[in-house]
Amino acid sequence: MHPFTKNLRLSVSALGEEKLIAAIRHWLGSASPRAPFGIGDDCAVVPAGRAAQLITVDPVIYGEHFNDTVPPRAAGEKLFKRNLSDIAAMGGRPRAAVLALALDSRVKLAWLEQFYRGLAAVSRRYRVPIVGGDIAHHKGGIVATLTLVGESSPARVVTRTGARLGDWIFVSGTLGNSLRSGHHWNFAPRLAEGQWLARQCDVRAMLDVSDGLAKDLRALAPRGAVPALDRAALPLRAGADMRAALTDGEDYELVFALAARADRAAFIRAWRKKFPRTKLSCLGRFVRPDSLPADALNLADFRGFEHLR
Amino acid sequence: MHPFTKNLRLSVSALGEEKLIAAIRHWLGSASPRAPFGIGDDCAVVPAGRAAQLITVDPVIYGEHFNDTVPPRAAGEKLFKRNLSDIAAMGGRPRAAVLALALDSRVKLAWLEQFYRGLAAVSRRYRVPIVGGDIAHHKGGIVATLTLVGESSPARVVTRTGARLGDWIFVSGTLGNSLRSGHHWNFAPRLAEGQWLARQCDVRAMLDVSDGLAKDLRALAPRGAVPALDRAALPLRAGADMRAALTDGEDYELVFALAARADRAAFIRAWRKKFPRTKLSCLGRFVRPDSLPADALNLADFRGFEHLR
Repeated sequence: MHPFTKNLRLSVSALGEEKLIAAIRHWLGSASPRAPFGIGDDCAVVPAGRAAQLITVDPVIYGEHFNDTVPPRAAGEKLFKRNLSDIAAMGGRPRAAVLALALDSRVKLAWLEQFYRGLAAVSRRYRVPIVGGDIAHHKGGIVATLTLVGESSPARVVTRTGARLGDWIFVSGTLGNSLRSGHHWNFAPRLAEGQWLARQCDVRAMLDVSDGLAKDLRALAPRGAVPALDRAALPLRAGADMRAALTDGEDYELVFALAARADRAAFIRAWRKKFPRTKLSCLGRFVRPDSLPADALNLADFRGFEHLR
Repeated sequence: MHPFTKNLRLSVSALGEEKLIAAIRHWLGSASPRAPFGIGDDCAVVPAGRAAQLITVDPVIYGEHFNDTVPPRAAGEKLFKRNLSDIAAMGGRPRAAVLALALDSRVKLAWLEQFYRGLAAVSRRYRVPIVGGDIAHHKGGIVATLTLVGESSPARVVTRTGARLGDWIFVSGTLGNSLRSGHHWNFAPRLAEGQWLARQCDVRAMLDVSDGLAKDLRALAPRGAVPALDRAALPLRAGADMRAALTDGEDYELVFALAARADRAAFIRAWRKKFPRTKLSCLGRFVRPDSLPADALNLADFRGFEHLR
């Protein structure tokens, strides 16, 4: 749906701020608790937790992360889910979201309603309330920014650092062709998988693939090591070739390092029992640059998504 | 400073993402801790606190909240401070900030550096680290969204609700003419004052004035009561008349209700001792609509700032 209208009666400006906020409360329904635990005060209040807090923020921008071909409901879902994917990548549990919406007053109310209904659906599905936010005028554009606060697994925070030479490299799901397949908005964030992985002490480091495996995997590699990937093991999404799987981005899959000492077969069995519907692939391991096998993929040949170019 | 340039060598696109993030780390300096407690992982990690959490989000948008007449450093400071003001309004303590920046690739690096240096200055002044964020491309615009996580006063969370009939209405500082005076970007958020007020048990409700007293005070009024304001008591900022003081907005001052039973003179003495440089004005009290004095200000005659019209 194209978000803008010249018919002012159908646009955001027809309601004005107070009625618009009332409409948003209605659209969000049970996804939005009452103030001070939700919308309506200067800050939202979230009861104290015992674990370390996780904070992440990501936007969706009209013309960048979605366009007229993406249903507005899916754009709202995408905004929420791409932040959930970041919490998943630390093995954490999401607790509360706040939304800052910058939008032109000519945005269609029908578009905005569907956008919020998408947010509300994800909020309910993952039990993460939308506790507050802000709406501001932004001539000509739509920038929706969601901040998610979560807490770490009681076990620990799984960061991007910690992988060692010899560790195995795993990835969930499939990679590539996320744009044309619609995966970039209809994916499921790997929250349950991330939380389970945080409890496996042999999982040493983890991240979610958003800019393409070739680029993101660099952040997981221990100092003085490179990933030696088996090209046959790359899990291709339908319609993706090897280059697409390595560079397309917006996969929102978990990549992690499993300690070399781990019982890899037992680990894979435990995953399959726990997540029978989520593919798991062992892509290779971290090796010294001078011992990279001749037939291994050389990631230096591939670039991931570059922002701001 | 006008933020955009046609000279690509002076623009954000000249650096590309990785060098830009490295530059931002440099500009932020000690304002930004190392990952996972700062920039560099999927989420930022904040150690667990014992008090309830506060979350607030507000943006600054080019053409809305700042323009070429506002120094970029001041725009960055404003972004941080307007969120600090929301934490102040709950009597809380800010703990960590994340920043989502949506910007055109033609933004001048010189502009962006000053913007971040402004953020870093506020971060250091109030000891609130910038722990993470996101940068995304946004053709033609600049939308910077800051989310602040804080914790409530050990005593309690001061919300907008709780004022009662007969309570006194107070305001800090002065009101009106925030745009031309530059107050909208050179104000100081009332953090120390808010935290002190949270410890005074006779302070029943509080908010910060962002859309003008006439509009914002409605949110503080108890059900079935209206504010009876003494027009002579309105603290006018230089260049402001009564209408400006009631409707201009962007004052970022604290308005609060003091219990009718409180020793008002003792309260005012305690404030003056604690905050000798911050003006405090008693504006009136909450009364029944049918007992509004004939000479009291009728706020229904004034409208505050209306967004999205």
